[in-house]
Amino acid sequence: MKIILLLTAILLSVISFSQESDSLILRQIFENAITNQDAYKNLEYLCTEAPGRLVGSPESLKALEYMKQYAESIGCDTVYMQEYVSKAWRCDSTVVYLMLTGGLAVKLDADAIGPSPATPEHGVSASVVEVMGLDELQAMGEDRIRGKIVFFNRPMKQTFVNTFQAYGNAADQRYRGPGVAASMGAVAVIVRSLTAGIDNFPHTGSTRFDSLRIPAVAVSTMAAETLSAMLKNGMGEEVLIRVDVQDLEPISTYNLIAEIRGTEKPEEIIVVGGHIDAWFNSPGAHDDGGGCVQSMDVLRVFKELGIRNKHTIRAVMFMDEELYQGGGKAYADYTHARGERTFFALEADAGAFTPEGFMVDAPDSVYRQVAAFRKLLAPYGIHYIRKGGTGVDIAPLKAFHVPLSGFRTDSQRYFDLHHSANDTFDKINFRELELGITCMAGLIFLIDQKEEW
Amino acid sequence: MKIILLLTAILLSVISFSQESDSLILRQIFENAITNQDAYKNLEYLCTEAPGRLVGSPESLKALEYMKQYAESIGCDTVYMQEYVSKAWRCDSTVVYLMLTGGLAVKLDADAIGPSPATPEHGVSASVVEVMGLDELQAMGEDRIRGKIVFFNRPMKQTFVNTFQAYGNAADQRYRGPGVAASMGAVAVIVRSLTAGIDNFPHTGSTRFDSLRIPAVAVSTMAAETLSAMLKNGMGEEVLIRVDVQDLEPISTYNLIAEIRGTEKPEEIIVVGGHIDAWFNSPGAHDDGGGCVQSMDVLRVFKELGIRNKHTIRAVMFMDEELYQGGGKAYADYTHARGERTFFALEADAGAFTPEGFMVDAPDSVYRQVAAFRKLLAPYGIHYIRKGGTGVDIAPLKAFHVPLSGFRTDSQRYFDLHHSANDTFDKINFRELELGITCMAGLIFLIDQKEEW
Repeated sequence: MKIILLLTAILLSVISFSQESDSLILRQIFENAITNQDAYKNLEYLCTEAPGRLVGSPESLKALEYMKQYAESIGCDTVYMQEYVSKAWRCDSTVVYLMLTGGLAVKLDADAIGPSPATPEHGVSASVVEVMGLDELQAMGEDRIRGKIVFFNRPMKQTFVNTFQAYGNAADQRYRGPGVAASMGAVAVIVRSLTAGIDNFPHTGSTRFDSLRIPAVAVSTMAAETLSAMLKNGMGEEVLIRVDVQDLEPISTYNLIAEIRGTEKPEEIIVVGGHIDAWFNSPGAHDDGGGCVQSMDVLRVFKELGIRNKHTIRAVMFMDEELYQGGGKAYADYTHARGERTFFALEADAGAFTPEGFMVDAPDSVYRQVAAFRKLLAPYGIHYIRKGGTGVDIAPLKAFHVPLSGFRTDSQRYFDLHHSANDTFDKINFRELELGITCMAGLIFLIDQKEEW
Repeated sequence: MKIILLLTAILLSVISFSQESDSLILRQIFENAITNQDAYKNLEYLCTEAPGRLVGSPESLKALEYMKQYAESIGCDTVYMQEYVSKAWRCDSTVVYLMLTGGLAVKLDADAIGPSPATPEHGVSASVVEVMGLDELQAMGEDRIRGKIVFFNRPMKQTFVNTFQAYGNAADQRYRGPGVAASMGAVAVIVRSLTAGIDNFPHTGSTRFDSLRIPAVAVSTMAAETLSAMLKNGMGEEVLIRVDVQDLEPISTYNLIAEIRGTEKPEEIIVVGGHIDAWFNSPGAHDDGGGCVQSMDVLRVFKELGIRNKHTIRAVMFMDEELYQGGGKAYADYTHARGERTFFALEADAGAFTPEGFMVDAPDSVYRQVAAFRKLLAPYGIHYIRKGGTGVDIAPLKAFHVPLSGFRTDSQRYFDLHHSANDTFDKINFRELELGITCMAGLIFLIDQKEEW
């Protein structure tokens, strides 16, 4: 009995000592991050020198090249581009008019949804059928839709506390709406922007067509309100849509990979990443330039503090989360083909706001081990570690049983900016960005110390 | 034994039912707040129509009058001004130049600290002694300070996670610095603005003189860096300060009081408030127009949802938290003189950002009862309820043993704006403001149900 008590006492003091030294290192990580401006400056570059960096664009390659040079400058062991072939698409302009009875027209702020097909040069004109969702559309039947422009106008609800839930509740209109309308004979689709407020920014995004593609645009919430009111008041019924876009030839593109080799298990990899691409209409500050510069800064912090990571820490700047979601799949195929074991993968793609938590997609036993780190990370803002979805780019790794995690931040402002010209560098708060780096580097530091799950 | 089990089961089911119905009402409060724009519009008015509403200013009365009319419009039972007499002070302009060797001058962005005395019309000129704090100043001794301008230049540290701690760590320079420098024979004081970043906004604030008053100004952090570098490089050593301010005759001013009478204990009062005044250089959006419109909106939510509050809920718009801290004291004297019992007092004066928690200043037994509400409020962002300091305006109620609470939000952006021209309405996020109302109204709803502490 005495021996058991003694052993318990020793064990407890070892755990307690270990937690204390962990918390000291987390504090060093914080102090390093909050007094360093590299990530902030890198993000300023991405937003101002390489905005609209959609897959296939010159800006996307410029952004990759910049981050590659930065990774080399901080002394990573390995920095390279992982090539893959992708479809590509380009948007040059989008114009939408409501034709008023009497001949005048009202211009509606709009951007093409990707990958919308082009309209003929003079555009597509048709009368508009406004619906609040897919159910209403399908209940109408093909006869009432054929030859029409379908206008999806269900607002994103304010009454979700987490705005990502509000987005999920409305996004089917953009993601599936154009395809379903096409299958019913519609000639084009207008989608109300997915943002809870009323503003003049079109918020674009991706859609999935089956075989039949029709032009699809997002109008600002203000334009959606205007269009709806004018249709109801009989001020007009016909809309003209002109979308100047191109499907490009398949291109070579890249994920950027930068590593610090592990000291004990270099063949086992911890991935931390964001996506380098951003919509053609957006500087992509929070979505997801922030996640990229934060992920890369995790490596800088490890190098500067001299943390000797056991596993290889690999930052991945994924290409093309937005349009075809190709980079994440190409990366998963690549790492699988090389027979690599990924010990853990963390994605930051929910805005560089004040940290709130981590989502974890892993078996219960692994989840519990990750969740146990909450208390150590709490001083830096982490007040939950929950099971749930993580990130689009790392999701393909799930097929290979990789424990996944998604970094989560205060969601209140995210959809004010998301997929729009409003997602600018000045919306980034330096301290919020750096607290995010602290939490990400902190979690990876804690996980790296594990020998096995 | 069976009876005990049965009673326990009944008790648990009553508690569980009660928590369930509480959480339903909290949900109604949220849905009401997040779909109503009154508070947002009221704040827009305060910021754009009554900026710089320092005690004694016409703007301060305009702001009070507007909020009074609003309180009447939502059907409060009682709305009135509680008069008191206050000192007053006005700042008309502040100019600071570093005189360069050779004759040119560099203008430094500056605002007077309140209540600085005026300089002579042509200003005060003297050579500058830069110090990093009061200790360094006092170690220098009077001989080296007499006749000089003292420049306090210790930066607010980035390495506090909570920015209020960083403020607390640096604010002695502004709060006590001018008085101490005066006592050592200095002719004026320059204080580096209390903000962690580097920007061009002077952030003013209050200072306390004993008998001797000397002109005192805050320069922007950018100006502080410039001044420090130029002094060190020998580009100049003399600074010219011109402060055009006036001590005004004592004036009548007011706290605004608006009430919904209690149904069971109308003579017992729950106070919720913020301060209506703002610095002369600032629209006062987050400090503290936000807290005022949130506090008043708690009454609107109660009225609209038909919540029958047991205690009287009283919103107080306190005058003059900034300059002499007179409104809170006048209110405490007033309510004490009337023999009122204050059951609970909540102040919102830490920015209208995403809610994080509540501070509680009360005996342990009361604190524990308040802290027990954390889980019910967690869906709306409250992840801590801690013991600690609450708010300047309600602090005088402590002498009468009133349980106090301060609403706390994400602190990362607060000192970017605080006491400066940068605290504008566009820095307010609608959802963050309304989540704050939800948490404040929610806490008051839960506390109102208590018969006794």
